Amino acid sequence: MGDEFSRIARYLAPLAGPEGLGLIDDAALFTPPCGQQLVFTTDQMLEGVHFIPGDPPSLIARKLLRRNLSDLAAMGATPLGYLLTTALPPGTDESWLAEFAEGLAKDQAEFGIKLFGGDSSSALTHISLSATLIGFVAPGEALRRSGAKPGDDIWVTGTIGDAVLGLQARQGTLHDPSGYLTDRSMLPTPRMGLRLAGIVSAAIDVSDGLVQDLGHICRTSNLTASIHAHLVPKSPAAALLGENYLEARLTGGDDYELLLVAPPGNADRLVTACGVLPITRIGSMSRGVAHVITLDQSGSLISILQPGWQHF
Amino acid sequence: MGDEFSRIARYLAPLAGPEGLGLIDDAALFTPPCGQQLVFTTDQMLEGVHFIPGDPPSLIARKLLRRNLSDLAAMGATPLGYLLTTALPPGTDESWLAEFAEGLAKDQAEFGIKLFGGDSSSALTHISLSATLIGFVAPGEALRRSGAKPGDDIWVTGTIGDAVLGLQARQGTLHDPSGYLTDRSMLPTPRMGLRLAGIVSAAIDVSDGLVQDLGHICRTSNLTASIHAHLVPKSPAAALLGENYLEARLTGGDDYELLLVAPPGNADRLVTACGVLPITRIGSMSRGVAHVITLDQSGSLISILQPGWQHF
Repeated sequence: MGDEFSRIARYLAPLAGPEGLGLIDDAALFTPPCGQQLVFTTDQMLEGVHFIPGDPPSLIARKLLRRNLSDLAAMGATPLGYLLTTALPPGTDESWLAEFAEGLAKDQAEFGIKLFGGDSSSALTHISLSATLIGFVAPGEALRRSGAKPGDDIWVTGTIGDAVLGLQARQGTLHDPSGYLTDRSMLPTPRMGLRLAGIVSAAIDVSDGLVQDLGHICRTSNLTASIHAHLVPKSPAAALLGENYLEARLTGGDDYELLLVAPPGNADRLVTACGVLPITRIGSMSRGVAHVITLDQSGSLISILQPGWQHF
Repeated sequence: MGDEFSRIARYLAPLAGPEGLGLIDDAALFTPPCGQQLVFTTDQMLEGVHFIPGDPPSLIARKLLRRNLSDLAAMGATPLGYLLTTALPPGTDESWLAEFAEGLAKDQAEFGIKLFGGDSSSALTHISLSATLIGFVAPGEALRRSGAKPGDDIWVTGTIGDAVLGLQARQGTLHDPSGYLTDRSMLPTPRMGLRLAGIVSAAIDVSDGLVQDLGHICRTSNLTASIHAHLVPKSPAAALLGENYLEARLTGGDDYELLLVAPPGNADRLVTACGVLPITRIGSMSRGVAHVITLDQSGSLISILQPGWQHF
């Protein structure tokens, strides 16, 4: 690899927006959009924790951005740009950084964002990455986890559980002949651009596991959530695997679908707002202890031991 | 340790400002100060790269914030808040996080900032940390690296080279009887709050090494910088070490002093703006190739092989 500054100039500076000042200053300079609130979120991806050594650098870059973009989507925000930290162990080939930057460039174009700034470092042994995304939302229009009301319906976009099944396929414990589940695990699609303010009462993205993430809405809204496991939508590729893996699908996370709570009277507006994106009603909120009840088709309780992913 | 969410609630949520929404939402919600530009910067600290395993968690936390604060100071910005990522290996004692949070709290109070949000993860083997700082500056008042003019003077705040000598003291290769150099290495003082807009033509903080950081001003301003090594201010503790270590002091970095370039006619205003903070003229800018010339007391060239810290 060339020196640190020539690497930045070659691979990262072309990704910078005017806010990045060519990545030659101490910090980024940003004029906030007039009359808007800003939304900030940050997420990291560590080799051996969030991705597998040898994963394609381009997909790692895009997943790093998309996990953060999904947090903005869950707040109803429009993305603007990001700051990036990279720490690469000595001996990392320059092609790694080139492909990583290609992935960033692709998703910058797809999601209309620019690099504002960052920090690059060496690492001891494993790659360590983080991104801070900056977006905006009209004042009062940010979606929150805390607004759910008794009687509200619980909805999810897309299909749930593909990513954890894709990870298992990559680990060799199940068969994914189409590669669909693997793709969903490696390159999620954040559900950007839905105009849900005034329609949903609470929102979160499914990053750590459906049951655990819904539990956050329960706690912040102080309500019980009841979901019907058989209603939780599955992809055709997941359906091919039969009825096994139910608990994995409900708790696996990494899908980056939106979990939305809305009054029953808003159902039509919600479906319309989602356009071509499928959305499925899976349960409802009620008064009671702040936790999630999972029911099978007969109405019997399904016991779930570990509701989602936690870091040790 | 308790689970991830109870650790966040216990140690980090008390640090959050209203923008952090109690650290229970997907992202932070921030209303920008009216009519200001925002300044964003991010820096990471990795165990074994930026700090020594076993360093006090409170000092690691404060240095993480201060390195970022120094970047805001170099842009003339006032800090507001930050996002934090932490990745801790399994088996990290809960007291580590408690002391880390105490350090954050101390510097939040000292510098008037709040936690806006973040991400916590497990790590494989070593601690990995990053912070993104958010500040503001009046439109047009941001200090840049690119504005130096021929004939401008080069100044530095405080003393240069203490941090690298402190690191050497910690490594046992030199003697630091007062502990001053060690303290400067572990807990730098960012030079916040100086009102330098309209006085200096270029600014950067000394993070990677005086010669290398001045080189950034040379390249972005397309000028030659000449500095006189004997004028570069040293602390009493560094002076005790005699004339050795000159190159280390000029290239070691990690001091987080400000390197300022200003027209000679602004010298009085610059000194006044720095108040009780000592500031020393060490050279001047001239037309020529964009590089740094270092001279000794007799005016002879000092050859410097490696102008500063680079990540592999």
